[in-house]
Amino acid sequence: MPLDDNTISQFAAIVGHSNALTEESAIAPYMKEWRGLYYGVSPLVLRPSNTFEVSAILKLAAETRTAIVPQGGNTGLVGGQIPDESGSQIVLSLTRMNKVRTVDQASNAIIVDAGCTLQKVRDAADDIDRLFPLSLASQGSAQIGGNLSSNAGGTGALAYGVARDLCLGLEVVLPNGDVLNGLRTLKKDNRGYDLRNLFIGAEGTLGIITAASLKLFPKPKDKATAWLGLGSPEHALKVLNLMQEALGPSLTTFELCAATPMQFALKHNTQMRNPLSNEHQWYVLAEVSSGTSQAAAETALSNVLETALDEQVEDAVVAVSIEQARAFWAIREAMSDAQKHEGGSIKHDISLPVSAIPEFIKRAAPIVEAIIPGARVACFGHMGDGNLHYNVSQPVGADTKHFLARWNEMNSAVHGLVAQYNGSFSAEHGIGILKRELLAQTLDPVSLATMRNIKAMFDPLNIMNPGKVL
Amino acid sequence: MPLDDNTISQFAAIVGHSNALTEESAIAPYMKEWRGLYYGVSPLVLRPSNTFEVSAILKLAAETRTAIVPQGGNTGLVGGQIPDESGSQIVLSLTRMNKVRTVDQASNAIIVDAGCTLQKVRDAADDIDRLFPLSLASQGSAQIGGNLSSNAGGTGALAYGVARDLCLGLEVVLPNGDVLNGLRTLKKDNRGYDLRNLFIGAEGTLGIITAASLKLFPKPKDKATAWLGLGSPEHALKVLNLMQEALGPSLTTFELCAATPMQFALKHNTQMRNPLSNEHQWYVLAEVSSGTSQAAAETALSNVLETALDEQVEDAVVAVSIEQARAFWAIREAMSDAQKHEGGSIKHDISLPVSAIPEFIKRAAPIVEAIIPGARVACFGHMGDGNLHYNVSQPVGADTKHFLARWNEMNSAVHGLVAQYNGSFSAEHGIGILKRELLAQTLDPVSLATMRNIKAMFDPLNIMNPGKVL
Repeated sequence: MPLDDNTISQFAAIVGHSNALTEESAIAPYMKEWRGLYYGVSPLVLRPSNTFEVSAILKLAAETRTAIVPQGGNTGLVGGQIPDESGSQIVLSLTRMNKVRTVDQASNAIIVDAGCTLQKVRDAADDIDRLFPLSLASQGSAQIGGNLSSNAGGTGALAYGVARDLCLGLEVVLPNGDVLNGLRTLKKDNRGYDLRNLFIGAEGTLGIITAASLKLFPKPKDKATAWLGLGSPEHALKVLNLMQEALGPSLTTFELCAATPMQFALKHNTQMRNPLSNEHQWYVLAEVSSGTSQAAAETALSNVLETALDEQVEDAVVAVSIEQARAFWAIREAMSDAQKHEGGSIKHDISLPVSAIPEFIKRAAPIVEAIIPGARVACFGHMGDGNLHYNVSQPVGADTKHFLARWNEMNSAVHGLVAQYNGSFSAEHGIGILKRELLAQTLDPVSLATMRNIKAMFDPLNIMNPGKVL
Repeated sequence: MPLDDNTISQFAAIVGHSNALTEESAIAPYMKEWRGLYYGVSPLVLRPSNTFEVSAILKLAAETRTAIVPQGGNTGLVGGQIPDESGSQIVLSLTRMNKVRTVDQASNAIIVDAGCTLQKVRDAADDIDRLFPLSLASQGSAQIGGNLSSNAGGTGALAYGVARDLCLGLEVVLPNGDVLNGLRTLKKDNRGYDLRNLFIGAEGTLGIITAASLKLFPKPKDKATAWLGLGSPEHALKVLNLMQEALGPSLTTFELCAATPMQFALKHNTQMRNPLSNEHQWYVLAEVSSGTSQAAAETALSNVLETALDEQVEDAVVAVSIEQARAFWAIREAMSDAQKHEGGSIKHDISLPVSAIPEFIKRAAPIVEAIIPGARVACFGHMGDGNLHYNVSQPVGADTKHFLARWNEMNSAVHGLVAQYNGSFSAEHGIGILKRELLAQTLDPVSLATMRNIKAMFDPLNIMNPGKVL
């Protein structure tokens, strides 16, 4: 049932009318997922300015049984931030809660409002000569509250971990309006159960993260970046192990990509070129960080490449300038976008035990080919984390709509193979709407029942982002 | 009400009579905390050999409303592993579940039964040229299930994190006997809520951890170890920051200790000697690990010490041999034990934002002195983690019983100051029986209510380690 005017007025009064959007044109940007895959309908977008207002909104929501959909930067990929089409759900945007609360250089910690963009958090860390290592293509708009709610991964995860690993504490408004204050900056704290990690990755279904205390790190003094050409994922795995053994936590990037997504990236970005003189079946982007100097990073990287070049690596080049390193990264970052120009793409955000990646890739190809002959696998991703974006582009000249209609069939086959390796069909993008059914169908029943009990306990009225995750 | 014979027989039948201990002499070791601070009474100790038996035990426990106290290596410091004195609780020892299930070198992961000792896990990692970095004085007896249930810290936490940070997945038997299978070896997995972290640190009150998948790391090639003399904790903080900035994750140890615990250690271990030629007010044990070589570690450590010696450090020595490095560590490790010989000791296992440590130490001393004039503060701990063992030894010649009678009074004052810095009164030892009331008195009410709801949801019959934590 759509919201009535009286209820809308009560909610609007909490944030003031200028921050209670009701005009269709003002609301529109909050209703649409950025790629156009998810659309919602709502009569009201609330933009609270502080935790007190968020608490008041949730209290009123509980009283009036109104569903609330929290939204950060609206960059999510699984529809978690978009309301349904009933017109009965209110969007709560964290955008105005964007203050850096405190920085503590000596403790390597920062406390920020949930609506700070990831870029703003990174900049605030940089201002005190520290690194906040979470790094995503969308960091200019993505908000830290959303990053935590979806447990984002990104390119910094190999050395520093995912969003979960970077969080020291949370302030959360619970579905009844209570404020849970867990904004600690402690590295060790064993006072009872770990509540923080329940909200991280819960996609706003258990409460609304309003602030977070985060870990900072000393800034690496410099980096060395290499682009490698290899014959197979087996070789890449050997190089990864070699590099991890030699470089330990200094190895901050190990990204794998196949020839196909590389070709897509170069074809649709004519200013880019292959850093190597020949084409290879597989490529790796590797980066080493050093606490001491550029020279130290380069020496460490070159030493290990020398060993690897004998047996595992066909060709390699170490960037000689920051510009060249950026050019390597630009190719990697162009891969996601480049697929758009090749027609429909069926996505898989999967993770596997790292050691299983070569065999998985070998076995997945004929499965894809059997379902849609001529479909082009664009496999790339964070190999060091076991995380592949195993995307399937339509055959050349195929009908896009017809191809995309087979999304579920393709997903089932690929995820079925992932399950054989005890892998995950949701590595870093979350569940949202997209994978909700899949979760219910495939998770072990005891875990699923436990999650449902937790949801019912926190949110007995089912007003927190209903229809997402579970 | 003590258990009746029929119930005892039913439980015994699950594990077989040879693994159902009922003789007083056989049971005795499970009833006593190793320092003699906690004693329990029970008619039965069960030693299951696999997860199926644990599940059957908990199913029967739920049917018969019998309380179960899980116990690992019985090295806990807060009484969490000891039954109460009613004679109605059964101890479930994980000791026979001690198999390494799988090792995966290329994925840097290992799956082990919960009853493996920490040493066994470390050895299994070592066998495949990997490091499992959790390290505790008690690792020869402490079991990994207990380490995870109490979220142990130890000396490896600075670079590698606490037990929580080292766990990839868990197998848990829930209080109703259901088996939750979360034994993943994935670095990224966003399939719904994070259940793993609820059980880590829950001290067996939500279920019994029966197996764990754990992160492994490349083994550092070598280490360099230094012993520093300093004038104050302020200087130590500056050196810590200097070292972290210069060495990043290569700084694997930064332990602080005051003159008093150093004197205690040397006095009661006559074979030990101060590594420096003079006495100092404060000491730091610092260790640097290198992925490349001993020389690299030594150079990195010496370079940063050179900078620090100018201003922050009064004197320093870098170990020239493994034996000398071990001698430095032996002093640090002797501090806990040495206090026993100085009479009663009132313990505080606290954590603070790292930047607050110098001010805390300055302000705490007169508070202690005001309560018990002449009491001797033995302050030492993992400064890099913000974790101090702020222990207070009795005044020379004082009556121990009389001194220890003021435990709560002293705790209240010290913990009160900790709270002013948003610190924690339970850094790495857990809550157990010892800090249960303190938790209830001081935790923010919303967090406490949430924890109690979680406990009630998982364990509505209150049969899982009742009387602990909450």
